[in-house]
Amino acid sequence: MAPSPRDADPVLQNEMDEVSEAINKTIGRLLPETDLAENKLYEAMRHGTLGGGKRLRPFLVVHSAALFNVDPARARRVAAALEFVHCYSLIHDDLPAMDDAALRRGKPTVHKQYDEATAILAGDALLTLAFEVLSESETHEDPRVRCELIKALAKASGGHGMAGGQMLDLIAENEEFDLGTISRMQRMKTGMLMAFACESGAILGKAGEPQRRALRSYAFDLGLAFQVTDDILDVEADPQDTGKDTGKDSQAGKATFVSTLGKEQAKERAEMLVKQAVSHLHVLDGRAKMLKDLAFYVLERRV
Amino acid sequence: MAPSPRDADPVLQNEMDEVSEAINKTIGRLLPETDLAENKLYEAMRHGTLGGGKRLRPFLVVHSAALFNVDPARARRVAAALEFVHCYSLIHDDLPAMDDAALRRGKPTVHKQYDEATAILAGDALLTLAFEVLSESETHEDPRVRCELIKALAKASGGHGMAGGQMLDLIAENEEFDLGTISRMQRMKTGMLMAFACESGAILGKAGEPQRRALRSYAFDLGLAFQVTDDILDVEADPQDTGKDTGKDSQAGKATFVSTLGKEQAKERAEMLVKQAVSHLHVLDGRAKMLKDLAFYVLERRV
Repeated sequence: MAPSPRDADPVLQNEMDEVSEAINKTIGRLLPETDLAENKLYEAMRHGTLGGGKRLRPFLVVHSAALFNVDPARARRVAAALEFVHCYSLIHDDLPAMDDAALRRGKPTVHKQYDEATAILAGDALLTLAFEVLSESETHEDPRVRCELIKALAKASGGHGMAGGQMLDLIAENEEFDLGTISRMQRMKTGMLMAFACESGAILGKAGEPQRRALRSYAFDLGLAFQVTDDILDVEADPQDTGKDTGKDSQAGKATFVSTLGKEQAKERAEMLVKQAVSHLHVLDGRAKMLKDLAFYVLERRV
Repeated sequence: MAPSPRDADPVLQNEMDEVSEAINKTIGRLLPETDLAENKLYEAMRHGTLGGGKRLRPFLVVHSAALFNVDPARARRVAAALEFVHCYSLIHDDLPAMDDAALRRGKPTVHKQYDEATAILAGDALLTLAFEVLSESETHEDPRVRCELIKALAKASGGHGMAGGQMLDLIAENEEFDLGTISRMQRMKTGMLMAFACESGAILGKAGEPQRRALRSYAFDLGLAFQVTDDILDVEADPQDTGKDTGKDSQAGKATFVSTLGKEQAKERAEMLVKQAVSHLHVLDGRAKMLKDLAFYVLERRV
């Protein structure tokens, strides 16, 4: 991983690097290189999933699962499935008909590296693979747990979750949204998948409802904080640091937290959200240090 | 439903109409109209799934399940989930970057009726919804059965199934495939989802392996026969009958059964495949009359 221009604290950074490396291995095993005639599809799926990235969601899965003594290999399978969904959404979002992005994580986007049709199919196949991975007994021996994971991931990523949020995002190009609608859009677009990341650890560990609720609430606040800081980075950061085109949202005239609140108020809101996120973790009796540290990192990050 | 130019036998036709009607109701319930800000997404999903079609796959699910005395409401949920996957694939295939089709089932394709971005998202959300439906206890009370359905559907529709077959289809535009590769491509593109349609009834009914194998083999032969007759219709039929642009594959220079075998040999092959399909059903002790009748209908169909 390239060093960040401003690193997180060394313990957190080390843990983030370790999760990234472990998840890359899991993804590599689930998407092996082939010599099939249709190998281009697998190459595109690997290009879209193995190109770095912060692996924030896998970190949340792994460290939520660790709170309930879940076998780390199982947590990594769920983390990989979730990352497949996250990466499929990036591949489809980057298409010319959507955000029309040429660069992602410092590399050409999938449709630039291959072609549009391949990018559409690679996204479709990644989404499908996510559910296949979750349905297998290696993910959990109890099929009830596997079904619960599948239902939760589908709800977080479908029409009432991420895909619906993307639809709102498209509508936002032509309609003025108020802050409430922007927050709902971000909750669907980003928050629900973050909530799945945290709750999936609790599902794997068959944790009780108060702990699930705490992790969901933490994730929603963290997800919103992450989105606010993303909007700030979109107007502030150097594309060489973020590895993607910056300033695109503001250029497209999209309503963002920065355009609605102004930069200073957006920063204050991110800070407030992070404090609120951390406050939900008290029911976990001080065991959630990594999740707490990650929340503060979201404020500090420059990529 | 518009009457076909050449109808199937009246009993079969009546049963096909009844399955279509029941599945439309199930799909309508799973995709209700909303007044949400993102309603356009749901409209596009309804447009892409409720526009008629032969509902061949739902017919196979319902009548395979009936062989094992499965609750018809459960079979219809699986049939709807499968139809969501089939329809998402049509929506994405019709996109300008893929087949660039303007017409489907006599209506504008989803990206023509709405726009490309909405069509991409509607396909994504339908695929996701399919797995959500299968994960719910209304589909089967045994979570082991639900996981088996999810795994089988994912395998049939992902990179090693339908999406991989689509990739081969794209490659076929620039490469000359032999008959073996065309058959493998069709097996992945169409056959595996047909096999899921038939096997899902056996999974729901917890049937034994010999019966599952018989239904899978029936479905693969039927699927291939269906594809051969599709290729014949592509060069023979009137677009007013099929409700879609015809002659597109041959114009695109794609290798098809007709271009490889010639029309007469293709017809012979379809007949041979249908007889072979029916021969697998003997282990079901004459209970599979509807599946047998459907196989012969595939030869007769003009749409």
